[in-house]
Amino acid sequence: MARRPGRARSRRRTQDLSSPPTVIRHYIREIPTYDLVGDERLEAIHDVSMRILEEIGIEFRDSIALASWREAGADVSQTRVRIPRKLLMEKVAMAPSTYRFCGRNPERSVEVGGRSMAFAPIYGSPYVRTLTGERRYARLTDFVDFVKLAYLSPSLNVSGGTVCEPVDIPVAHRHMDMLYAHIRHSDKPFMGGVTSPDRARDCLALCRILYGDAFLDRNTVMTSLINCNSPLVWDDTMLSVLRVYAAANQACIISPFIMQGANTPITTAGAFAQLNAEALAGIAYAQLVRPGAPVVYGATLSTVSMKTGAPMYGTSETQLLTFLTGQMARRYGLPMRTGGMRTGSKATDSQAAYESLQTMLPAILAGGNFFLHSAGWLESGLSACFAKFLLDADQLTVLQRFAAGMDFDSEAFALDAMKEVGPGGHFLGCAHTLRHYETAFFTPETSEQGTYEQWFEEGSQDSLARASTLVTKKLAGHNPPPLDEAIDEELLAFIAKRKEALPTGPE
Amino acid sequence: MARRPGRARSRRRTQDLSSPPTVIRHYIREIPTYDLVGDERLEAIHDVSMRILEEIGIEFRDSIALASWREAGADVSQTRVRIPRKLLMEKVAMAPSTYRFCGRNPERSVEVGGRSMAFAPIYGSPYVRTLTGERRYARLTDFVDFVKLAYLSPSLNVSGGTVCEPVDIPVAHRHMDMLYAHIRHSDKPFMGGVTSPDRARDCLALCRILYGDAFLDRNTVMTSLINCNSPLVWDDTMLSVLRVYAAANQACIISPFIMQGANTPITTAGAFAQLNAEALAGIAYAQLVRPGAPVVYGATLSTVSMKTGAPMYGTSETQLLTFLTGQMARRYGLPMRTGGMRTGSKATDSQAAYESLQTMLPAILAGGNFFLHSAGWLESGLSACFAKFLLDADQLTVLQRFAAGMDFDSEAFALDAMKEVGPGGHFLGCAHTLRHYETAFFTPETSEQGTYEQWFEEGSQDSLARASTLVTKKLAGHNPPPLDEAIDEELLAFIAKRKEALPTGPE
Repeated sequence: MARRPGRARSRRRTQDLSSPPTVIRHYIREIPTYDLVGDERLEAIHDVSMRILEEIGIEFRDSIALASWREAGADVSQTRVRIPRKLLMEKVAMAPSTYRFCGRNPERSVEVGGRSMAFAPIYGSPYVRTLTGERRYARLTDFVDFVKLAYLSPSLNVSGGTVCEPVDIPVAHRHMDMLYAHIRHSDKPFMGGVTSPDRARDCLALCRILYGDAFLDRNTVMTSLINCNSPLVWDDTMLSVLRVYAAANQACIISPFIMQGANTPITTAGAFAQLNAEALAGIAYAQLVRPGAPVVYGATLSTVSMKTGAPMYGTSETQLLTFLTGQMARRYGLPMRTGGMRTGSKATDSQAAYESLQTMLPAILAGGNFFLHSAGWLESGLSACFAKFLLDADQLTVLQRFAAGMDFDSEAFALDAMKEVGPGGHFLGCAHTLRHYETAFFTPETSEQGTYEQWFEEGSQDSLARASTLVTKKLAGHNPPPLDEAIDEELLAFIAKRKEALPTGPE
Repeated sequence: MARRPGRARSRRRTQDLSSPPTVIRHYIREIPTYDLVGDERLEAIHDVSMRILEEIGIEFRDSIALASWREAGADVSQTRVRIPRKLLMEKVAMAPSTYRFCGRNPERSVEVGGRSMAFAPIYGSPYVRTLTGERRYARLTDFVDFVKLAYLSPSLNVSGGTVCEPVDIPVAHRHMDMLYAHIRHSDKPFMGGVTSPDRARDCLALCRILYGDAFLDRNTVMTSLINCNSPLVWDDTMLSVLRVYAAANQACIISPFIMQGANTPITTAGAFAQLNAEALAGIAYAQLVRPGAPVVYGATLSTVSMKTGAPMYGTSETQLLTFLTGQMARRYGLPMRTGGMRTGSKATDSQAAYESLQTMLPAILAGGNFFLHSAGWLESGLSACFAKFLLDADQLTVLQRFAAGMDFDSEAFALDAMKEVGPGGHFLGCAHTLRHYETAFFTPETSEQGTYEQWFEEGSQDSLARASTLVTKKLAGHNPPPLDEAIDEELLAFIAKRKEALPTGPE
């Protein structure tokens, strides 16, 4: 009975300031989505994707997957699988359009799909950018600090996965330390390890301790990232990890890794047709593993500079692809992965901010459901930056409040207030303003809103300096959410035992 | 005959690199606009605006305007004008939905309205931020430098108006020096002075010299900024300047100056209903002056911090207002003013970039036609920043390329290229890529796209440092577009004579 999730949560009734509020309206998109193209054109794109899978086919470099496809009726030749559109779409239709992504605190569970939005921080950086601007390999202590910051950020409702690579921990052990950090220092939903099927099984085992077998079987407590090797290759590691999670009813983000111009055609229509084919083939395979397995459709997007070969973010092309992804997700009735505050900039400067928002703002209007890399991403993802984490999270709140829309009742129209104030007056003291001013506007805590003179006298700090100071303050104030001691001990015991059994040689 | 515009342009046949290309497809929006609300709700908002003008009324603090309104059938009581919706909408309907905004180089004329987009730089800053980061009062030499930068920026197709206040020139003379700088150092369309009706007449006189009487009478060569004193006051200066320009068939941007929560209701629906009423009343008055006079509908938007009283930019509220403005502009069949790379930040940092793009990206999707403050705006408009000018202009190109949409023909779908490359290959050398790589992607020149190591070795410059270097380089390369010498002499003679006649005492 120690495993019932209710036990783990019973103590957290009184909310203190060191933890974020649990119920935020702003994770629901109340504004319409933006359609870039009409239905006819959407069908034309869909048709090209179908032709890719029928005429060129896609590689599944994994014998179990190949056998499944053969059995399902696809044309399998060596590792090449050609999938008739009818078969493909039958399987895709089995995927749920929305699923509940549970946190260990049930008040922090989020819907993924429909009008709901889940925001997870940066994923996968080997380096961190410290508060003094140093770039060095990430450590487990950094990882824990990012988990704490995400826990404290009202705009992030998912704790994330590999928020940075804790390079000081052997690869063979790392997945468990990461998962434990998410469990211990946060109570928001988290992502599972994907570097091998055994490690995925370890993550499942830890979740079994945390949630109990019965709960886990019926609920999705992890959403994990499965990338396609574009163009048109699903490799054995990704497929075998996908199999572990899908079989256990855990969600997978099925994401082509797009570097437009390098691993896709240079033209945007072609790039999209390919990514759509890749994503649908992966999603259909997840349904072969377990019909109804929760999946997220989408892609990770960059444009490759034809001058330097570097990936570029927040480009016109990634914006167009983002909107097409949203429309196609709706056409197929699938949750959509998108977004991210992504940049190629090496510094937390204006380039970083421009590119991040050129990526993230379209993703909101495109109707995104799962936003990866929502905070902290720097330098094409090579570095996770503490200061940028807070800067991004603040701007995310602006977008969430925008997506929450506005009221149109008579109180919102305020005709009486206008009559009271009259031409040439001001509204600062009127009754209507007094009723609303406390909740009316959001002021990002990393932003500066005073006078120039005041700012100058206080040392002319830029937003990077302010955010860096704030990181320290926030981390000092973090209070871990309560975790049942028996569960905690069991988690630690499992990890210790597994570590003993797992060799830590170089990979 | 010296005044025919053809003469002034006959020499510029060969284009050199020190001037921007003339024909850019990216000023046309090929993507759909975004509708925030449905038709029913739009009508409800419209109705509240009508009730504001009918029940509260609006101040026209100018005897000529009051007489016109009385004659037109409005209910005039002292300076308060109550306008029945039928009368108002009859007048608004007279305004053209689009007009041609002529540059002295006809190849640089731009449409304002429909799917066309005109981008003008920052307007009205008393200070500049120099290349060393110093903040000081702006001078005429700064003004000229901004005109040169706008001339060289492919993303700016309007030279602007008061790009900064040349504080070293007496106010009584300033408008002519500014207009002359636009004429002399650029050949893009420009904006006229608005500080008094006499100064507006001086601007018209200079344009008569440049274009000739006949051309000026039939064509719009200036678009000038007429702000409403919100809430609900049109003052005599603005109205008398509006009268000068509208009577001469020159365009006016009729723009409420919104500081939400201070000079409008704190709620967004109320703020919009008020700005809509103000803008429509101003537009209707322009039509009383001259039926068919070109106008632009819109507003300048900020949200007032309830903590510090400072204006905030790129907020959720300004985003919602921007989209509503676009929808209403389409409902009324009017060109829409919006946008700007606007920020309250004191530094050209990430806050500045985030807020700028939180403002500008929605403006593009909202269907904006005239974008003021598109480059260089810093510190709530108090400073015009040289480096930010280039940073903003670069990001504007990203947005323009996005707005230009994408191709969907078989070449764009690239199915043959995908067949050629196949699963697991790459597209970098394939024939399809070679056909497109030169024009495929845009790399902002202020952005950094190399490796971390390269960046570090080259001095770890941030985007502000790179842009500052680039400003110097660009200004050194500027070549003024040819201007007929006889016209030039006549312009200078007019200015010299007027300066003699105009006292320069303190205002």
